[in-house]
Amino acid sequence: MLFYTLDIIGTFAFAISGVLVAMQKRMDVFGIFIIAFVTAVGGGTLRDMLIGKTPVGWMNDLNYVYAIAAAVIISIVLRKKLNKLRTSLFLFDTIGLGVFTIIGVEIGISANLHPIICIALGTMSASFGGVIRDILCNEIPVIFRKEIYATACIVGGITFFILRYLKFEEDLIYIFTVIVVIAIRLIVVKFRVKLPNVYQK
Amino acid sequence: MLFYTLDIIGTFAFAISGVLVAMQKRMDVFGIFIIAFVTAVGGGTLRDMLIGKTPVGWMNDLNYVYAIAAAVIISIVLRKKLNKLRTSLFLFDTIGLGVFTIIGVEIGISANLHPIICIALGTMSASFGGVIRDILCNEIPVIFRKEIYATACIVGGITFFILRYLKFEEDLIYIFTVIVVIAIRLIVVKFRVKLPNVYQK
Amino acid sequence: MLFYTLDIIGTFAFAISGVLVAMQKRMDVFGIFIIAFVTAVGGGTLRDMLIGKTPVGWMNDLNYVYAIAAAVIISIVLRKKLNKLRTSLFLFDTIGLGVFTIIGVEIGISANLHPIICIALGTMSASFGGVIRDILCNEIPVIFRKEIYATACIVGGITFFILRYLKFEEDLIYIFTVIVVIAIRLIVVKFRVKLPNVYQK
Repeated sequence: MLFYTLDIIGTFAFAISGVLVAMQKRMDVFGIFIIAFVTAVGGGTLRDMLIGKTPVGWMNDLNYVYAIAAAVIISIVLRKKLNKLRTSLFLFDTIGLGVFTIIGVEIGISANLHPIICIALGTMSASFGGVIRDILCNEIPVIFRKEIYATACIVGGITFFILRYLKFEEDLIYIFTVIVVIAIRLIVVKFRVKLPNVYQK
Repeated sequence: MLFYTLDIIGTFAFAISGVLVAMQKRMDVFGIFIIAFVTAVGGGTLRDMLIGKTPVGWMNDLNYVYAIAAAVIISIVLRKKLNKLRTSLFLFDTIGLGVFTIIGVEIGISANLHPIICIALGTMSASFGGVIRDILCNEIPVIFRKEIYATACIVGGITFFILRYLKFEEDLIYIFTVIVVIAIRLIVVKFRVKLPNVYQK
Repeated sequence: MLFYTLDIIGTFAFAISGVLVAMQKRMDVFGIFIIAFVTAVGGGTLRDMLIGKTPVGWMNDLNYVYAIAAAVIISIVLRKKLNKLRTSLFLFDTIGLGVFTIIGVEIGISANLHPIICIALGTMSASFGGVIRDILCNEIPVIFRKEIYATACIVGGITFFILRYLKFEEDLIYIFTVIVVIAIRLIVVKFRVKLPNVYQK
């Protein structure tokens, strides 16, 4: 139940990040809603399509749709004050990152997939909504260039499997995984860590 | 049967709109065909993948493929005269919009999905081919910025459910829904209605 | 077994072509890996999702993942010498083109689809990884504009069905199809053949 609440909070936060990008691109309200939507559920939707879990998740639970609609309305109304909420938004967004990673890993496990594929599914759930958002906004996806966003998910996924192998209880695995994801993200932002870029010349 | 004919006509018209964009981007004939194809069937294909109705529609009915091939050949041959056919094309395209909306809504209903999701599927069927076309052509999708195209589908979908709730006959529901979609589109184009854009500053 | 080896070699070569594009776009190592991945398996993944063959292929065979990881590491390490390997890379890439076409056609046949759709699936398997790569890199897909890449796959697919109709043995069909694909690609590159572009004015 707590987990489901965190999932909805993460959806809400991801949707707001979509709204912010869509407003920068001067989209109309329909465009803003769609970008918010794909940012929030795009990663999970792609994951569900890849493993054949259809109809995809949000089609059977309108709470995701309501959370996204609320995020759009609130962030349009409060658009001039959003900068002041930056810290809360960052926190929600990071919680979402952790929760979505766990959901993706769990779905991979219940489909009997190899841990490497499960970690890939977790990372995809958490970070590919942003990739689809950037494609729709005609940008090279930001996580391919300079944000260690996916890395936090990958390390989180590895943590998950190590704790699982050590027979930790499910609740503890969840909590530790989320903490690891949040910790890495905070460290990365604080110390401006970035992955190496590689050029041919 | 009439409905199927209208579906094919809509596919044909959507394909032509794809050809026009692809020619502007100076693509070769293969590129033109692919863009025509995704414009015509991309929305329905995405819908089918999301709900797990595979193999997707056009794989089991070659008439869609033939309609698209015909659209490509005809519009390449007549490319200097297409401007004169603008009114007919607009009409066909708008019929397609209405018909595709209904098909999407019906498929959502037969998959036992909530009316809100059904309306989303109708809108997606009718308008996401154009979104995929724009992505492949490296543009921000036009319906996110200035065309009230999706709005006509959404209102059409709502009309569909109101009439269904009022126990209208299926044929009447179809006819009224298509008329509503066409009427909204005409009004929008005539009076240059647009959705509000929202900026942060 | 030979066929599977060629499939892995093709995957490896396609992944390297992804790395080269990603490095040009100055992506970080995560971005490079993802672009290599979608270039190598994107076409087959789209094919599998369209026909409902899920979980998609690479999720059940980690050798693809390992081949891609090897391609990424090797091409980053050897990045200043890759130009000298241009001929080998072109050869591997072209073998991949032939092998992926056959795999797509075969999967279409086992799903009882019409030969036209099977040829489309073969072409998609072989060439749509590059399309997804270009979209993620914010470019108009190169095969829509100037490379006769897909044409080699289409002609290969037609060859496949002609030989099958003439009751050739499976092994011979495979060998001839791959030879046709390679031959067309070589002729195209040598004589700089290109498909006609069509403009409206």
